[in-house]
Amino acid sequence: MELQFLGTGAGVPSKGRNVSSTALKLLDERNEVWLFDVGEATQHQILETNIRPRKIAKIFISHLHGDHIFGLPGLLSSRANQGGNSPLELYGPVGLKKFVETSLGVTGTKLGYRIKYIELKTGGEIFNDSTFSVYAGKLEHRIASYGYRVVEKPRTGELLVDKLKQFNIPNGPIYGKLKAGQVVTLPDGTDLDGKDFIGPDKAGKIVSIISDTRYTPEIDHLVDHADVVVHESTFSEEDKKLAYSYFHSTASQAARVAKKCHVKGLLLTHISARYTGKSALLLQNEARKIFNNTRVVKDFDIYPVPFN
Amino acid sequence: MELQFLGTGAGVPSKGRNVSSTALKLLDERNEVWLFDVGEATQHQILETNIRPRKIAKIFISHLHGDHIFGLPGLLSSRANQGGNSPLELYGPVGLKKFVETSLGVTGTKLGYRIKYIELKTGGEIFNDSTFSVYAGKLEHRIASYGYRVVEKPRTGELLVDKLKQFNIPNGPIYGKLKAGQVVTLPDGTDLDGKDFIGPDKAGKIVSIISDTRYTPEIDHLVDHADVVVHESTFSEEDKKLAYSYFHSTASQAARVAKKCHVKGLLLTHISARYTGKSALLLQNEARKIFNNTRVVKDFDIYPVPFN
Repeated sequence: MELQFLGTGAGVPSKGRNVSSTALKLLDERNEVWLFDVGEATQHQILETNIRPRKIAKIFISHLHGDHIFGLPGLLSSRANQGGNSPLELYGPVGLKKFVETSLGVTGTKLGYRIKYIELKTGGEIFNDSTFSVYAGKLEHRIASYGYRVVEKPRTGELLVDKLKQFNIPNGPIYGKLKAGQVVTLPDGTDLDGKDFIGPDKAGKIVSIISDTRYTPEIDHLVDHADVVVHESTFSEEDKKLAYSYFHSTASQAARVAKKCHVKGLLLTHISARYTGKSALLLQNEARKIFNNTRVVKDFDIYPVPFN
Repeated sequence: MELQFLGTGAGVPSKGRNVSSTALKLLDERNEVWLFDVGEATQHQILETNIRPRKIAKIFISHLHGDHIFGLPGLLSSRANQGGNSPLELYGPVGLKKFVETSLGVTGTKLGYRIKYIELKTGGEIFNDSTFSVYAGKLEHRIASYGYRVVEKPRTGELLVDKLKQFNIPNGPIYGKLKAGQVVTLPDGTDLDGKDFIGPDKAGKIVSIISDTRYTPEIDHLVDHADVVVHESTFSEEDKKLAYSYFHSTASQAARVAKKCHVKGLLLTHISARYTGKSALLLQNEARKIFNNTRVVKDFDIYPVPFN
């Protein structure tokens, strides 16, 4: 499980940072990539990575400002051009479907795959299958904005190979059956129950993506004990009044949430163009005084989940 | 008068060529820039040029395929963010207004300047003022597509300074009055008529932009005696059947039009991704066998009008 940042700037593209998009790569877990926000030229950014558009299975939109959605029609079209034919789920505030369908309709675009729209009117569980669930929570921005909490379910523990060796069982198909929890009868009539040879479940990972918002207590629920929190950090604490009036967060606000909610790592994104080049490190330094395992991300950065 | 190419590829963005956009820089003539098509990430391309978005006064859209319009909402928004407050004229096929207004509406974007939409249902003169006129002509593409002919009006001739010297008139405010065509009375009572001291009008320049289309006789009218023709050239003559079935042109077709219609220079754009890197020169070589003053353009290329 990895995060890759495709656009880490605020509002308008600059030479250094494109507008918002974050990829959650779940290649080992699901052979899928999930995107969070799709600012203009996200498909251009993807050209510089090893992400295959056809593997993008779900897209979560935080809110309907242009710097978070104007790349959607192009990305959806290119996904079709590049052989994507599996259905795609598109989550986000009401209005998302109208924007996408108008864009595809006016241009006469036939995608060759189905889009399932899940328009959100409130928070709660929005996805749940055997390996993952996703929760949305309402943030506080000028327009409806949602944060997302991605929860991997506990994974089956390791096969206890040393214990199997005590029973003199040679490596072979039996291992697979036991790992799958089946009961296997040995030639001497002994029954082995897979459950006895599998270690404890391993905790799943939690990733929270908090896009444009002021601080609101809902964030605490979304990030609680997360392995990684990706948090917008448009301003420094010095400009906290500005952040409040523009419905944005400061680096310190993000760090305080990370500390209070016992997260393992904090990645700051959505950086205002006023912090060009290395001056973005001001935000990182500010946040680290409160929560040490913090990084300000750049376009194309890759972080494992969790990171150190 | 200059042309700058902001996107010279066909269909989808590649690392080498962005999707369609061409800028006609009329800085000396009008202190304006006019854009022809606005593919996704045109505003990103502009960041690498000296074009100021607030100087973009007119945008002409050839047709409503995504690779020609998906950059519009972002460009219009950034024009506002970067201080553009003068009205903007947006020309193109019916449906353009719906696309732009939905995109701006869903995102709650307030531009701070007025867009005047001129939706085309047929060809003809679409703009005319004291210095320029523009004609649209219907092309032959899968959906409604228009070519554009930009005609600069004849410019007033040069002031005949040598002739003025024969009358012993010293350089000064009188020159300006005569250049403006006024009658000036000298201290000795002599009347000088400006008209007698101005050389013949200079011909205005003509630029034609022929975007996605098969060959159709309407193109002849659009490019007749143009100083520069920008013509799509998605395929080589070898693939003329493919070009026909996809409603596109070959390099040779563009060159034949250029020759037949006595244009001064031909610039080939909208190059298929199959011609990566230097292989695009195949198209140039093919065209030059028919019309010598031809160039295949690359992103960011600048050409004066006319060029040699």
